[in-house]
Formats: sequence, structure tokens, C-alpha cells
Amino acid sequence: MQNVPASQTAIPDIELALIDRYWRAANYLSVGQIYLLDNPLLKQPLKPEHIKPRLLGHWGTTPGLNFIYAHLNRVIKVRDLDMIYVCGPGHGGPGMVANTWLEGSYSEIYPDISENAAGMQKLFKQFSFPGGVPSHVAPETPGSIHEGGELGYALVHAFGAAFDNPELVVACVVGDGEAETGPLAASWHSSKFLNAKRDGAVLPILHLNGYKIASPTLLARMGDEELESLFRGYGYEPFFVEGHEPAAMHRKMAETFDLAFNAIQLIQQAARDGTASTERPRWPMIILRSPKGWTGPKEVDGRKVEDFFRAHQVPVSNCRDNDRHREILETWMRSYDPADLFDDDGALRPELKALAPEGTKRMGSNPHANGGLLRKELRQPPISDYAVPVEAGKRGAITAQATKILGDYLRDTLMLNDEAKNFRIFGPDETESNRLGSVFEVTDRVWMEEIRPYDVQLGREGRVMEVLSEHLCQGWLEGYLLTGRHGFFSCYEAFIHIVDSMFNQHAKWMKVTRRLGWRKPVSSLTYLLTSHVWRQDHNGFSHQDPGFVDMVANKKSDVVRIYFPPDANTLVWVGDHCLATYDRINVIVAGKQPEAQWLSMQEAEAHCRAGAGIWDWAGSEDGGEPDLVMASAGDVPTLEMMAAVQLLRDAIPDLRIRVVNVVDLMALQSQDQHPHGLSEPDFDALFTTDRPVIFAYHGYPQLIHRLTYKRNNHGNFHVHGFIEEGTTTTPFDMTVLNELDRYHLALNAIDRVPGLKARSGDLVAMLEARLDEHFHYVREHGEDMPEIRDWRWRN
Amino acid sequence: MQNVPASQTAIPDIELALIDRYWRAANYLSVGQIYLLDNPLLKQPLKPEHIKPRLLGHWGTTPGLNFIYAHLNRVIKVRDLDMIYVCGPGHGGPGMVANTWLEGSYSEIYPDISENAAGMQKLFKQFSFPGGVPSHVAPETPGSIHEGGELGYALVHAFGAAFDNPELVVACVVGDGEAETGPLAASWHSSKFLNAKRDGAVLPILHLNGYKIASPTLLARMGDEELESLFRGYGYEPFFVEGHEPAAMHRKMAETFDLAFNAIQLIQQAARDGTASTERPRWPMIILRSPKGWTGPKEVDGRKVEDFFRAHQVPVSNCRDNDRHREILETWMRSYDPADLFDDDGALRPELKALAPEGTKRMGSNPHANGGLLRKELRQPPISDYAVPVEAGKRGAITAQATKILGDYLRDTLMLNDEAKNFRIFGPDETESNRLGSVFEVTDRVWMEEIRPYDVQLGREGRVMEVLSEHLCQGWLEGYLLTGRHGFFSCYEAFIHIVDSMFNQHAKWMKVTRRLGWRKPVSSLTYLLTSHVWRQDHNGFSHQDPGFVDMVANKKSDVVRIYFPPDANTLVWVGDHCLATYDRINVIVAGKQPEAQWLSMQEAEAHCRAGAGIWDWAGSEDGGEPDLVMASAGDVPTLEMMAAVQLLRDAIPDLRIRVVNVVDLMALQSQDQHPHGLSEPDFDALFTTDRPVIFAYHGYPQLIHRLTYKRNNHGNFHVHGFIEEGTTTTPFDMTVLNELDRYHLALNAIDRVPGLKARSGDLVAMLEARLDEHFHYVREHGEDMPEIRDWRWRN
Repeated sequence: MQNVPASQTAIPDIELALIDRYWRAANYLSVGQIYLLDNPLLKQPLKPEHIKPRLLGHWGTTPGLNFIYAHLNRVIKVRDLDMIYVCGPGHGGPGMVANTWLEGSYSEIYPDISENAAGMQKLFKQFSFPGGVPSHVAPETPGSIHEGGELGYALVHAFGAAFDNPELVVACVVGDGEAETGPLAASWHSSKFLNAKRDGAVLPILHLNGYKIASPTLLARMGDEELESLFRGYGYEPFFVEGHEPAAMHRKMAETFDLAFNAIQLIQQAARDGTASTERPRWPMIILRSPKGWTGPKEVDGRKVEDFFRAHQVPVSNCRDNDRHREILETWMRSYDPADLFDDDGALRPELKALAPEGTKRMGSNPHANGGLLRKELRQPPISDYAVPVEAGKRGAITAQATKILGDYLRDTLMLNDEAKNFRIFGPDETESNRLGSVFEVTDRVWMEEIRPYDVQLGREGRVMEVLSEHLCQGWLEGYLLTGRHGFFSCYEAFIHIVDSMFNQHAKWMKVTRRLGWRKPVSSLTYLLTSHVWRQDHNGFSHQDPGFVDMVANKKSDVVRIYFPPDANTLVWVGDHCLATYDRINVIVAGKQPEAQWLSMQEAEAHCRAGAGIWDWAGSEDGGEPDLVMASAGDVPTLEMMAAVQLLRDAIPDLRIRVVNVVDLMALQSQDQHPHGLSEPDFDALFTTDRPVIFAYHGYPQLIHRLTYKRNNHGNFHVHGFIEEGTTTTPFDMTVLNELDRYHLALNAIDRVPGLKARSGDLVAMLEARLDEHFHYVREHGEDMPEIRDWRWRN
Repeated sequence: MQNVPASQTAIPDIELALIDRYWRAANYLSVGQIYLLDNPLLKQPLKPEHIKPRLLGHWGTTPGLNFIYAHLNRVIKVRDLDMIYVCGPGHGGPGMVANTWLEGSYSEIYPDISENAAGMQKLFKQFSFPGGVPSHVAPETPGSIHEGGELGYALVHAFGAAFDNPELVVACVVGDGEAETGPLAASWHSSKFLNAKRDGAVLPILHLNGYKIASPTLLARMGDEELESLFRGYGYEPFFVEGHEPAAMHRKMAETFDLAFNAIQLIQQAARDGTASTERPRWPMIILRSPKGWTGPKEVDGRKVEDFFRAHQVPVSNCRDNDRHREILETWMRSYDPADLFDDDGALRPELKALAPEGTKRMGSNPHANGGLLRKELRQPPISDYAVPVEAGKRGAITAQATKILGDYLRDTLMLNDEAKNFRIFGPDETESNRLGSVFEVTDRVWMEEIRPYDVQLGREGRVMEVLSEHLCQGWLEGYLLTGRHGFFSCYEAFIHIVDSMFNQHAKWMKVTRRLGWRKPVSSLTYLLTSHVWRQDHNGFSHQDPGFVDMVANKKSDVVRIYFPPDANTLVWVGDHCLATYDRINVIVAGKQPEAQWLSMQEAEAHCRAGAGIWDWAGSEDGGEPDLVMASAGDVPTLEMMAAVQLLRDAIPDLRIRVVNVVDLMALQSQDQHPHGLSEPDFDALFTTDRPVIFAYHGYPQLIHRLTYKRNNHGNFHVHGFIEEGTTTTPFDMTVLNELDRYHLALNAIDRVPGLKARSGDLVAMLEARLDEHFHYVREHGEDMPEIRDWRWRN
């Protein structure tokens, strides 16, 4: 532990006294937001009608957040730093709002909330108020890239922001509640991916204020020795700041920040002038122990409040009706001495205003926290360079590995943006396994630990970020995107569920920012889900889950897109398209195994733009109305569907089959539900209004029903998909277990077309025999029948 | 770091030599499973046809797992311990299968896989083979409570198993890949919840074999000093075992296990005879550094394999066609000298067999790993004790806090099972916030850290487990249930998404175990999701997400149940019912705020058993066919629906409204989709076949469409629910933002009944005016209009 010798630096008392006043101003404004409707400067005695009828907000964490903010302002000014503040305890919304108002950022963005008493009154009233601002640090809060409602992601967001931003410092407050979460516990390892030369710095500030909603926190009750050991083990140099007496705490904090920022400067200097050792640096972090609800009421109704869990939300309740409570509130607010902080008109006094940085150096106005301001377009190579040649007579006869081709595309995208240093690829140790390995021709996995002579594809400057934590990948990428850069996340399909909740939170953030004019668009978050449910040969049931897209489809339609490219050319088109979009979340599902190729690049483009289309070269409608529609979405379902079509066409040549393929799943929804939805006539033109539709879908069948339930022909949709039957088996056996295979599809088709059974000769018996044959063959030989393995579409 | 002095104990070389042979036998069987179809004892030279056509499995982690297993066998025998093995690297399936076969457990459960050459051949062939066993440690694997396909949960499962099992030791292998995940990184703190007196012990063995699929692991590249610091920081005493030379490693491992188990014994003795200090003990853990793919091929085709990532799956591929590869395989397998390990008939040689424990002391036969064998029924109090009196004339007029009443029920359940010590409550710091605080009348939060004089509801013996990590709560509970106990998990609704993926994995485990006769039923995992989307006044959008049940509904219907009790009596009935079930996952969604009460306990029982029913006392059908069905699922939707019904009835007395309430969401599905599904006639009897149905649903509306799409009247369902509009606002404003409020419901009803608009006078104008009035009122006053707050159902 680094203890700060009291005499080491000489920060004048007068400076610290000013900081204390600044802090009091922030605290005053925070309390005001939670409690007051009116009388913002307490020029009158506090009356019931000045108090909000519903008291909503979180005081406990706020004074500590304000304390940190005030001291960071000093550091920014002294060192002329470019800094943003990631507020892990997002519940401390009032604090972030207060500070950005004090420094002027707030009123610039929201002129109605002016820097005077009238603005202060509105600032107070709007907080946690209908039509106002949320209680949390939210997209509406200037200077924030982080909501902090769902705890766990502060530190990954901070590191994501710091990557490739060498001049940026990200101060990141981690609450001791949040520190108990899994994602946060793993996040500390992020410094092992931070290159002091090309990346910025993250200064984690672990704020131990002792309590969660109702009980102590684990880390706060650990002794200093264990804490120091833990964070040294994580690779940091911890600095402790502990106490409750403001004057002493201001000195400790200021001196400790000086030490920590000196340490950061030394590390960066050494890395950048080439004098650094090859060892990963030991970055500083701060452990701040301060009382929960610091400076608030010590007791209410005889019960301990300050420095206890009861300070978590509203420390003294019911201040409208309970005179004694209102008196506590008034005494508390007056203890900050508002007249000493604000002038008669409610403006912050100039000597205090002078403590805040200016312009974009203010943390509420730093453009990194509104990344769209800094975003440069991604340079993308022409997709024609990656076209797999698919000639008319050879459809389905040649195979390619779709993700391998996309890997080539990503490799060249990395090269094109190498100078801009604003594109990274993220994935939990699966880039190679997902067949995106071409990227390693031009870059490495970033790795700041020891590199041994026989290691491959590891480097200090790598642009591929791999760690066996989907949480870290997702969080880093979110931080990277929200600060104006571009990225791509490839993941095993089943395990993307690990970040369901992070996806939810990011979608919510996106939904709100899209409605805020001052937040500029940021690049979309694009997932490639591969190593998917139908090809988990090495693993089995635990690795088989296609349900992520079901959750995605619940989100606001302006935010989400879901694609199932059936082959390599469609995948490249979709990938290229997604990387050029902004303010969205794109999910692409595609396999990594060699599969049949169906469309030329030109056809792929037309098909993907339409979202869904008829493959007339595959069907047998001959211009008339079809007897039957055979549709598919997904690469494996398309393969099985095509094989089923061929079986049917061979056996019943006069059967009029229409073949439909869906790439953009949202095309299935009504136009009033999703902007990509096909119009009713367009939908009917594909799926008819009355013919049976056999639909082979990649995931849970219910999603197709849910998306199409408003469509005219919905009652005739018969969807095959994953029905939660899985294990380690052959690829074809997986489809059979789930009745997605060609035989089941063909059998269902025969069932659904009136009178077809009679016309189909011994086809039913043949298909059933094939299933039986398959069953015995795989259990005997351990691989699929040659006729399955070697099957090709016959043009 | 505790270094083991070489001379401290005197384990004879001959004993270690036997262990080495045992280890070789396990390694031999592991390789055989990955590669061989036949020739199990290598009595013939290895030919192409002896090799599986598809080589699937993971060798890399396996020799280390086998090494640990062999040494744990020794410890069990020497100390007569009751021990189970949690295998974090579940990919090491071949190892667990091999060991349980060697000790005889496997053949007892699967007699067909006998302890001889014929059995060995089947053992080999079945692995990762269609119709055989999965490649992972799976439910099919004897002795396991943990799949280990999705990494991150080994340690929480281990602790869950150890709670309230004072005589059990859980050896838990944590792979260094898994150690990078968030959940695992937080899991180390679990020892802060383990009471040495009443709970068993967990011995974590961090297995650093250096590599993931394609790159080094973070923890393996950390130096010993940082590692030791990290784990001391987490509160453990780390013991290092490092090397690759088998003889030396056997001695180190045996001696280190002796030290570690001595330490465990001392800690437990001191805690149990009362001589322990009050400080949390520093439990031992082991850091084992051994080469990945240890004893496998050092190089293949000139490329490093052993001790490198290339040993991860199948170290030498294509052994059928490539003679050189087959030779490498044969040399490798013969290096274990099978004739030295197995007799001529393939049985393990008796001097080796003697190394394994016997009977239920074998880790593959320990009943704790098949918890249903040990499960005692939960004692449950009569629910009539908790009935909220709801008389016919007072429906909807009285209010109660549903979860508060359930808290009373849980309190008494805790008391009834206090002696059995087999019931715990889990939740992320929200037991009190979720209004289940009555449980603290009889127990505490368990807390092994410092307890201060002013702390409340904290104790060493508490049965409420709170930590701000949904991952830990879920994982502990899974481990607790799978070892035969009972539990209850309450969680904020939005944040249960954090454990989506753990839910998925548990549902998959349950689905498989239900089909295995030898796995006895375990108690269901029951969630109470509260502090739900409609009542997040303190928080807002980040805390508003009702989508967990959408994912649950994707799972096998025999495993999942979803309940939306509309009031306290129905909640108590459902809670009581769920706690008595087994092998399922139950999700209950209910609010914690004071809400209207609708049904007496007797009515609640009938209503819940039916799953859905007509509330004839609320409707106005008068025995005829209704003009309209007004349906709801969920407490807030039911309140709004009832208010809408009252508005309509008041304004249009001759309108025939049927009121339907749904408690058991699965009642909506067809009977062929879910066992709780209503029959078609029963469904039609509720919802008619042709009348409009206005459905107020708690969550995303699409789920109702998806569940009912096969129903006759589905085309007339108009569902209101959460449409992703949220923020910090008043309770009623939340419903208005999402058009779930009484006014929108009534307006939609008027729209949907043909001709009704004309009959409704100025009702439409009045409803629209009300919405307008609401809009202005809440933005002015910050609370809902008195007529909303004070609204009561008029009986």
C-alpha cells in the first residue's frame, strides 16, 4: 500500500477550502433534486408545498461521487487533461446532474435549465419527475457513456473508452456493491489488455461506502491488507484514501490524486519514449473509504442513517407531512450554506465556477462522452473482392466457409483503418475457431502479459481482443463504440446469452439516445453469432441455443436488426452493410463450416436488400400459383429445405413448389411493427394468402409465428426449427432430432397439401425408410450416410 | 505461498507408483474414448478401421483432471472422506467417464458398459457418438452435478453443494479459461458465506494448464507472486503444485493435498469445538500448473502440441487416413502400457482397483451428486394461515402487499425446516426491498465477515444468502438443489436477465436428467421476480424489462412453468405449489407494492389450479354470449383491466363483458405444446371463438400471440403490454406510456366491438380527456391524480 506522506505536496489550504465549497454546492444541488419542488435557494423557510410529493432517488452514493468529481476537476485543470468520468454507481444521478450544471455543461445542452435560481428550480423539479429526467445517470446526462442501473460494467466501459485514445484519461468510479458482481470482478484484468503507448489510461476508484440497499458490502468489510493483496494480485498499485472529516479528506484526496496521476504520467512517458521495460506496468488505482450518505443526516427517528445502509435512497422520508422530518431536511440543506455557494440569483459564485475546467475539458462536455462527435466513417473494402463465384449452373454444388470469407473482408477492413486506429474485433477466444483467422495475417491478439518465443498471433499492438469472458468483450466494445469508434463481436451463438442483460441495457441506451438531438450517432454494435446450434459437433447440448434473437426481437424496432445469410456472399453483403450503420444493434447468424453456396454477389445484394425473396431457379411454379411454399431462414435450414425441395420435385414433378428464402428476419413483421417489414402485398406475393408454407427456421419456431401472426396466411405456416433436442452427434442427426431435416420437411409438405399424399406414390414410405436408415447408420458408423454428406443441389 | 517441504510427509514411492499407474489407466481410457471404435486393449496393431471416422472431444484438460481424480481417491481413502468432484472444465468429459468406469461406478449405473474388454470397447465407441454419450461432463456422467459446457459456474456450484453439508468436501477444479469469466472471478468470494461449523468444505483447485482454444490464459501467464497475492486477497491460502515430470508431480500433489486437507480439518475442528477465533478462516486452495495435453504427443507434423493450445481438442487428427498420424496415436496410447494396467480381459488390475474408494465413497457413486437420493420433502405450513380475507362484497376494495404475505409464509417455512437445515433463500441484496423481510424475524443474512454492533439481520448462521451478484445467487442455489435441498430465489425482474444463460444451462440439465432413470428428482428452482417493470419508481428504464419469461417459454414444456398471480392469495398458493414440485423451473412474477385483492384463498386455489378462469363477479355477461372478453395476466394489468371494465360497465350498462384472468401462462398454449395447456373446448369456453379479446399482459405482448397462435380465436386477440417505453415516472404514467392503462384498454375495447362506438355516447371523448388530464396532472404535480390513486373496484 502506498500511504501518502502528509507533507509530500503542498496544496494550499485555501485551494482545498474552495474545493470543499464546490463539493458542498454539488451536494446541495443533489439533495435539492431529490426533495424540492420549489424554494431552491431556501430563501424562505421550508414549507410542505416546497417538497415533492414522491421522494425518489439515491442519496447514499452521491456525496462520494461529488467529492471525486470536484477533485478530478482540479486535476484536469492542473494537468490540462482530457478526461471523462464513468460513474459506476449510476444511482448517483443527482450528483452527475449537479456537477454538469455547476460547470455549465448542463445549461448549454438544456438551455431551459439555466444557471440561475429559475434554472435551479427546474433542475430540482425535473429530477425523477414525470416528463423530467430519470433518477439514474442516463443518456440524458451530459458527459456520460454509462447508465449504471444494472451494475457490473463500469470498468469495462472505461477500458473500452480508453483503447486507442492515448490522450484520454477515464476516471472510473466502481461502487462496492457493483464490485461484488461477476463482470466487475473480471473487469480488473482489463489492464492486461491496455497498451500504455497507444491507449489512454483508466484510473479506477473503488468507492467503499460500506453498504448496499440493506447490508454491508463484502469489499468494504475486508481489511486493508486483504484489499491491497487483492488489487496487487489483479496487477494494480492501490492507493488508500479513508476518512470522514472533510478537511482532512480533501487533502488526502488531492495528494493521492497527485500521486496517482504522476504514476500514470510516468508509465505513459516510459512507454512512449521507449524506455519502458517490457513488463506490464502496474497501474495505479484508488480505494476510497468514505461514509455512505456522507454529510447527510446522522440519525433519523433515533436510527443510524449516515454511514449506514439507511442512507441508500432517501434518508429522511415523508418531509411534506412530518414536520420533524422536514426540519431535519432543512437543517441538512442549510448545513451546506447555499448563500455561501450561490449568488442571490442562484448562479454559482465566480470563485467556485473558476474551479471547473473550461469548454470541452469539462467532463460534462468532453466529446469522448458523446462519441458521435468524434466518429469517423469506417473505410470498407469493395465487397466484390470477396465474391464467391456462383454461376447459374453451379448453385449449391460448390461449397465455401462463409465466415472464412468474411474473415478476409475483416482483414482488409483492419488494414484500411490501420492508420485511423478506430476498428477492433472482439471475441471470447474464438476468432480462429470461428474461422475469422485471416485477420491474423495483418494483426494479432493484443496481449500485454509475457509473450513466449513459440506463441503465435499475440502482440502488444494487436487489434483483436480475446478473453474468455463475453461480458468483457461486450463491455469493451460498448465503451469503444460509445466513444466514436467501430467494432465487431464474434461469438459462439449459445453463449451470447451470457450478455443478454448487457445487450438489453445497450439497446435501452440506444433507444433513448436516438431521441436526443445532442447525442450524435455512434456506430452500431454488430454481432456475428457462429459456431451455431446446428454445428456443435465437438460440444453438444450445452452449446446449442439459438434463442438470443428472440430476446433481440423484443426491443424497439428502430434499434435492432437480425440477419440469417444463407451463404458466403450474403454474409459478406450483410456484414459490410451492418458495419456501415449507426445507432443500431445488428445480429448476424451464420455458420463456419463449409456449406453450399447459392447466390452470386450480385444476386446476394438484391436478395439482402429485399430481405426475403423467391428463389425461382429452385422452385417449380412455372409462373402459376404454387401448391406449396417451402421457405427457410438460416444456412443449415436452407440446405435442408433445398434437399427437401429436390426430393419432392424428383418424386412429384407436377407439384408446383415456390422456394422462398429469408435473410432479414424483420422482413416478416408488419410494416407497422418494423421499418424493414414487408408490405402486406409484398408479403402475400411471397407467401401467398392460402397455400401451406413449410418454413425451415434456424432457431425456436415460435419466433416465426410471433413475427408473422398478423399476416394473412399465418394460419398456414408450419415452422420447423430447434425444439431443444440436442447432444453431441453428427450434423445431420442434429437436424433429424429436431425434425428440421429434409425428410421431415418433405413429409410435412406432403401432409399439408390437400390430396398430395395420394399423388406422391411411395414417397412417404421412402422418406420414412430413409429416416430409419439414417438412424441405424449413424449409430453404427458415427458419421452421416454418404448420400447426406455428398448431397448437392442438382441444377 | 506455502511451499511444501519435500521431506515433510513420507508417502512411500510404491504408493505413488501405483497412483501413477492408475492415472495412466485413466489417461489411456480417455484417449481411447476420443479415438477408438475397436481394438480397445491394443491387442492388435492399430488399423484405420479401429479409429472413429469423426474425432470429437477435448484432450487438453483431461490428463490434469485425471491426475487430480487419482490423488483425491487417495485422500478419500486415507481420511475416509465424503467427497464429490466438480469438474469446471466440463470438456474433460472423457476423464470423468474414465475415472468413474475405473472405480466401478459407471458399470453399476450402465451395466451394458461392463468392466471388461467388451465394456471398454463400448465405452470408447459411445463417446461423442450418435446415440452415445456427450463429449462433456453431462447429466449422463455419474458423480457430476455440473456440466461445464458454459464456463463460469464450477465454484458456485461447489459452494452450493457444501452449504449445510458439514461432512462433505467438494473438490472443485477451476480451469484457467473459466477463471477469466466474470461469474468465476466473483465466485472466489463465496468462502465469505461458508460457515466452517455448519457447512462442508470446498477445496478449489485452480488448474493452470496455460491455454484456451487458441491462446494463453491470463492467469497462467501471471507470475506466482501476483497469483498468490490475488488469492490471498480473495481470502485463501494458496498452495502451488507445478511441474511436468510425473514422479515428482505425484509426490508434490500428494503432499500438498495432505497439507490442504490438514488445513481444512483444523479449520473445521476449531469451528466445531468452539475454539475458533471469530475471524473468517483462510481456507486452502491449490494452484496446479501442469502442461496442457500432458503425456500426449509433444509435436505433430513439426508443430508444438503438448503444453500448448494445439492440445486443446484432438491433438493428432485424421488418424484413419494418415498413417503417420495413426502411428503417433498408437505410440501415444502404448506409452501408457495398457497390459500393465488391465488384465487380459480388460478389467483394471486388482492392485489398481484397490486404490479407488468403495461404495458411496467413490466420487462417481456419492449420493450428494445425485441429490434426489438424499432429498427430504420440504415441510410447508398450511396456506390458509396466510389468507387475506377477501369477502364477496369487498373484492378489489382492500389492498395488501402480496410479497409481504409470501414473506410470512417463507418465514414459517424456514422455521419448519430449521432442524432439517435444507432450505435457504437467495437474492441479490433485495430480500427486504422485495418485501420478504418477515424472514428476518427467524433468521439472518449469512455473513462471515466482521459484524458490527449496529448491524442488523446479519449472522453466522443465517439462512438468507445475499450478494450483489445474480450469478452467485443462481449458482449457489443450483448447487444446493442438485445436492437434494430446497431453495427460493427472489430477484428484481429486469436483472434476472443477468442469469439467462445459467437458466438455460440448468433447464438443459433438468431436461436430460428427467429422462435418466437413475437420476432421482430434485427440487425445482423457483424464482420470484418482483420489483417488476410497472413499479420501478426509484429507478426507471434500466430496471424495466419483463422479457425473462419469453426465454423461459422457449424451453421444454415439461421443465418450465410461468405464473402471474394477480394478488396475495394467489401468490401464496402458487409459491406453496412451486416449492413442492421437483425437476422443474418455476417463474413467479408478482409485485411488492400494496395492490387490490381479488380472490379469497379458496377461490385462489380453484383459480390457480385451473390456470385461467372467468371472473363472473366482475363481468356483465349475464349468462349469454359476451360481446367482448377483457382478459389479463399480472397484477398491474389486472388492476388496469378491472378499472377499464368498470369504466365500460358504467358507461354502457348493456355491454356484455366477460372478464378472464390468467395465472398460469402455459394454460394459453395448446395441450400438445404444454401439459398445462387448456384443451381447445376449455380455451374457447373462456375466450370464445369469435369475440374480440382485449388482453392486458404484464410483459411483451408478442408472448401472448406466440402462445395462442394455434387457438381458434387468436385473430381477435388484441394484447397490451410492455412496449419498451419506460423511465422514472409515476406508476400510472408507466402504464399510460405503454398503453396498458385503463383508458387505452377501454378505448381499444370500444374500437373492437362492432357498433359499440355508436352506443358509447361521449365515452371516447371522456377517456381521451382523462388521458390528457393525466398527462398534465403528473407533469405538474409529480404524482398520479387522486382518482387514480384512490380508485377501488366497486363491488
